Amino acid sequence: MLLEAFSQEYKRKIEERMKDIVSGLNTPANLKAAMSYSLEAGGKRLRPLLVLAVLRAYGKDPLIGLDTACAIEMIHTYSLIHDDLPCMDDDDLRRGKPTNHKVFGEAKAVLAGDGLLTLAFGVIANMENNQLSPVTALELVAELSKAAGAEGMVGGQVADIEGEQQDLRLAELEYIHVHKTGKLLSYSILAGAILAGANEEERKHLTEYAYHLGLAFQIQDDILDIEGNESKIGKRVGSDETNHKSTYPALLSLSGAKEKLNHHVKLANEALMQADIQQDILTEMLDLVAKRDH
Amino acid sequence: MLLEAFSQEYKRKIEERMKDIVSGLNTPANLKAAMSYSLEAGGKRLRPLLVLAVLRAYGKDPLIGLDTACAIEMIHTYSLIHDDLPCMDDDDLRRGKPTNHKVFGEAKAVLAGDGLLTLAFGVIANMENNQLSPVTALELVAELSKAAGAEGMVGGQVADIEGEQQDLRLAELEYIHVHKTGKLLSYSILAGAILAGANEEERKHLTEYAYHLGLAFQIQDDILDIEGNESKIGKRVGSDETNHKSTYPALLSLSGAKEKLNHHVKLANEALMQADIQQDILTEMLDLVAKRDH
Repeated sequence: MLLEAFSQEYKRKIEERMKDIVSGLNTPANLKAAMSYSLEAGGKRLRPLLVLAVLRAYGKDPLIGLDTACAIEMIHTYSLIHDDLPCMDDDDLRRGKPTNHKVFGEAKAVLAGDGLLTLAFGVIANMENNQLSPVTALELVAELSKAAGAEGMVGGQVADIEGEQQDLRLAELEYIHVHKTGKLLSYSILAGAILAGANEEERKHLTEYAYHLGLAFQIQDDILDIEGNESKIGKRVGSDETNHKSTYPALLSLSGAKEKLNHHVKLANEALMQADIQQDILTEMLDLVAKRDH
Repeated sequence: MLLEAFSQEYKRKIEERMKDIVSGLNTPANLKAAMSYSLEAGGKRLRPLLVLAVLRAYGKDPLIGLDTACAIEMIHTYSLIHDDLPCMDDDDLRRGKPTNHKVFGEAKAVLAGDGLLTLAFGVIANMENNQLSPVTALELVAELSKAAGAEGMVGGQVADIEGEQQDLRLAELEYIHVHKTGKLLSYSILAGAILAGANEEERKHLTEYAYHLGLAFQIQDDILDIEGNESKIGKRVGSDETNHKSTYPALLSLSGAKEKLNHHVKLANEALMQADIQQDILTEMLDLVAKRDH
């Protein structure tokens, strides 16, 4: 359980750093409160931990990636705030707490999301703090824009909305997940590789690992909506079926979905074996994603 | 009327380039349509033209700044889409056309805004296209994040919402405008200066010019809501008074607001005179802002 010690140590550092960044902003108190509220709502911090884990796998100091890791968590958090809005998923609870718009109102929730999204790019580009080379920082910005934007997460979100209440084929479902959750997860791993100075070949293996990790993550998400424990997940279970949502279990049956999950875990592991790195934590990370109960 | 010829030439180039960038995106058709709809809704393109005008004032090729100019217009456009949402200003018309959410629905309007905001940073950071030095591009990203985010435009928007239906003092009104519209206008001028390689002293004069230009712009906006022609502005006139909005004319009387406008135009011109550049177009730009009828 190397990962557990690693996570404990760095989760705290990630959360402290995000708090520092936001508390240092010269901005209306209520906006700062709304941005902090969702950033501090907890969560596994999977994405930022992936950045740091890749750096460790390359024998580098994980803290080189701290600001980039925080930027990714800000992007993830903004996407949850906007996803929860009444015009989107209309969710009242997130991680067991009232959603941002329930506490701060819709207008401020939209703006808190916009603020976090905009801040994320500044955190990576702020050379005084993060001590990256300009070329590295710029590549991180360009790739983040691609992964989080219309060609990535935002595109997946639109496809998801358009697919609602429709019977999707597996390819369409996969498009949604590869984009909506996969692209930012993949970016987290790519960012670690960029920061570690990995070459093209290495990046290819890690991107492959990330792709399958992302799909495994989503399939387990669907499975948890059937088999999960409400108090552990922090949201209602069974909502996918109630909402007639296309899911892996709905398309493949529950056992078919589990088979698919194992398939992606296997391919992720194979990709990882080809990368010339210390694999331990990334293997555990995959295990965590595939076997998590929340 | 140097500005008119300049605007005609470059407005077209800005619009073509934005169209190129968005049409090249690999993203769901409806998202692309929603992003394009608002980008192509017209407008004065004041912000991107300011970037190019500053470059020209330094004797540089304005096209060096084309991508940065487009990025700024994307940020401006996303802010209009989100501002118009039912939970914000709830506007049905923008530039004489139905607002984004009226055409594409609220969820897609939120996401089209998110997509444009995210894209803007990628456009500046994409080294293949814009041929900037990494240090320059990174400074442009960092300053854009500051100007558009919680410490800038988004912060001003929150202050504006919180100030609604309250009797604001002049200092509070100024805070709102300096942030909500001023910061992105100032950034446009700063970006031109960064791209032109202007030194600290020069940047200071131009930032001063930008500050007063921004306030002049907003005061004229308030005046147009009283004296303007509905069909030229493309939206209802008199809405500020109906909505009990704090404005310069409401606080200072109409003639007091006009005096204040002239005061800022004077200070903007004085700042401009101190910069060692070819001032003609920037002087005309100020005139345009202060005397515009829409």
